[in-house]
Amino acid sequence: MATNAGGLRFIRYGSLHGSVLGVEVVLPDGQVLDLMSQMRKDNTGYDLKQLFIGSEGTLGVITKVSILCPLKLKHQTVALLSLQSYDHLLRIYDKIRRQLSEYLTSFEMMDAASLDAVVTNLEQSHPLGSHNEFYAMIELSANDKDHMESRLSQVIEELMSEQLISDGTYANDDNHNRFLKLKSYRERIAEGLLRDGYSYKYDISLPLNVFYEIVEVMRERLKDTDCLKVVGYGHIGDCNLHLNITSKAFDKRIKTTIEPFLYEYVAKHKGSISAEHGLGLMKNSYLKYSKPVEAIALMKQIKKLFDPKNTLNPNKVLPND
Amino acid sequence: MATNAGGLRFIRYGSLHGSVLGVEVVLPDGQVLDLMSQMRKDNTGYDLKQLFIGSEGTLGVITKVSILCPLKLKHQTVALLSLQSYDHLLRIYDKIRRQLSEYLTSFEMMDAASLDAVVTNLEQSHPLGSHNEFYAMIELSANDKDHMESRLSQVIEELMSEQLISDGTYANDDNHNRFLKLKSYRERIAEGLLRDGYSYKYDISLPLNVFYEIVEVMRERLKDTDCLKVVGYGHIGDCNLHLNITSKAFDKRIKTTIEPFLYEYVAKHKGSISAEHGLGLMKNSYLKYSKPVEAIALMKQIKKLFDPKNTLNPNKVLPND
Repeated sequence: MATNAGGLRFIRYGSLHGSVLGVEVVLPDGQVLDLMSQMRKDNTGYDLKQLFIGSEGTLGVITKVSILCPLKLKHQTVALLSLQSYDHLLRIYDKIRRQLSEYLTSFEMMDAASLDAVVTNLEQSHPLGSHNEFYAMIELSANDKDHMESRLSQVIEELMSEQLISDGTYANDDNHNRFLKLKSYRERIAEGLLRDGYSYKYDISLPLNVFYEIVEVMRERLKDTDCLKVVGYGHIGDCNLHLNITSKAFDKRIKTTIEPFLYEYVAKHKGSISAEHGLGLMKNSYLKYSKPVEAIALMKQIKKLFDPKNTLNPNKVLPND
Repeated sequence: MATNAGGLRFIRYGSLHGSVLGVEVVLPDGQVLDLMSQMRKDNTGYDLKQLFIGSEGTLGVITKVSILCPLKLKHQTVALLSLQSYDHLLRIYDKIRRQLSEYLTSFEMMDAASLDAVVTNLEQSHPLGSHNEFYAMIELSANDKDHMESRLSQVIEELMSEQLISDGTYANDDNHNRFLKLKSYRERIAEGLLRDGYSYKYDISLPLNVFYEIVEVMRERLKDTDCLKVVGYGHIGDCNLHLNITSKAFDKRIKTTIEPFLYEYVAKHKGSISAEHGLGLMKNSYLKYSKPVEAIALMKQIKKLFDPKNTLNPNKVLPND
C-alpha cells in the first residue's frame, strides 16, 4: 500500500489508486485518521486516502486497509511465444489485446539475454528448444476454459500464419507442475541475473515506441566497460521495463555510465524513473527527472502539513534541500 | 474529472482514480502544474493528481487530462429480468457476477415504482407484459457474441429453474432500436419521475444488506405526507442507490422528514451521502456524515495550502466555519 506495489497483473486489475476502498492511518502526531470504507463510490470531500498510497510511509503509518478484491477466475493458461524482433512483439501485443481482451491477465516480455539468465545461469532446459530474439509470456484467465483455449489456439494460428511468431508453447493449471515451470522462466530472471555477481536494477516506465530502444542504447554505451549483461524484460501492457545490467562485482564506472544518462533519457521521453518500487533513500534526489519543480514544491508543503516535525522516514521520497 | 463522475459501467471500468494517467492544472495563483503523463505506472513522489479528481474545482482548474481508455468490445447484450424480492435480486447478482464476470459491464436494479415512472408517466408499454416487484438490467459486452449469448441463456435458464426470476427479455445491438428501447426503461426513470411535479433526489452508497431497506424505511416515514412516489434504483455492483421521492410541488415538510434522518441512516451504516454527484453548495454542511472531524480538518488545511485566498469555488465541498 505505502509503496503502491503493482505486479504482473496490473494490466488487468489496475492500480491500487482504483482498488483501495479505505484506509486507517496514524498521523505523525499520533492522531488516528479513520478513512475506512467498504463503498466503491464516495464523492464527499477530497480523497485523502490517495495521498498515503505510494507515499512510502512519509505522511502516516497505514494500520488498516479495505480493498476491492476481484473474483478469482477458475482457469489460467500461460503461453510462451518466441519472436524475431521488438516490432513483432508490439504487433502481437496489439492483436492479442484486441482479440483476447476478456481473458488477458498479463502480457510480459523478455529479451534473449533475460531468458538466457534463467537457462544458462540457473541451468534450466530451454522452454522452446530453439533460441530467438524476444519472448512474450501471456497469461489468460477465464471461467470457461475450453472456450478460452480454443480462442487462444485460433489467435496463435493466425500469428503463425502471419509469421509474427516463430514458435510457442502453452500450459494450463490442470497440469500444475508444467504450468509453474513455464511461468518460472519469467519469474526467475532476477535470480538468474544475480548469479553473474552484481546487478544494477532499474524499474522504469517508457512509451512503447522507445521501450526497448533504451536497452540497445545502453548496450552500446556500456560496450567498453566490464559489464556482463544488459537485459530488458517487463510488463508491456503497463509500459514498465525492468532494465538490468550485471557485472562480476559492483563497478563505479558502470554505474556512472548508466546514471544520470538513463534518468535524462526517461525524462526526455516523459516516462517514470521508478515505475513500481518508489524512490526511497537511494533515488529521492532524482525526483526532478519525473516531476516538475512546481509539483516537488507542493509535495514538500504537503509533507510539512502532515508531518511538521519531519518524524516519518525523513530522508525518503523527497529530495533534501 | 473534477466531479469524479462514475456512471453505469463503473462496475467494469472502475474509478477515475484508477484510470486518469495525468492532468494539467492551473492553481489559484495562476501557476500551471504539469502532471501530464501517458504512463500507467509512476511511483515517484506523492500522486498529486488524485487530489484534483473529485475536488469540484476547489483546488485548481483542470485544463488537460490524459486518460486510459479501454478497448471497446464489439458486441453488447442487455437483459431485463423481473423478480419477486430484493433478496432474489442479491442472489441473482451473486450468481451472475460469478458466472458471467468476463462479460458483465453493468448491473442495474429498479423497483416496481421506478419502472412505473417510465411506463405510466411517460406512457410506454411495459417491457415484459407482466408486473413484478424488482427488475435487474444487465449489460454484457464481448468480442465473441455467440459464446456470450449462449452463456447468458444458460445462466437465465438456471435462474428460471431455481425460481429466482419470473420473466425476462434480452436484446443485442444487432437490433439497435430494440436494444436502445430496452435500455431506455432504466435511463428514463429520472425523466419519468419529474412528470410527478417535484423530485427530491438522493445519490447514496450503502452496503447491500441495507441497500433497499432505506427505501422501505423512507416509504413508511413519509406515508402521512403528500409525497407521491418513493422509488429506489441504481448500481447494485457499486452499492450506489438513487433514492428519489416525488410530490406535486416542493414541500418543506417532506424535505425535513427526509433530512437529516437519511444522512444519519447512511452514516450509521458507513455509507456515503453523495456517491456520485459530490457535495457542491447544497450539501457541503453534511460532510460530517461521511467523514470524521480529523479528515475534515485536514481537508481544510489542504484547501488553504492550495488556495490561501479562497478564490476557487469558495463555498463548495467543505463546510463553512
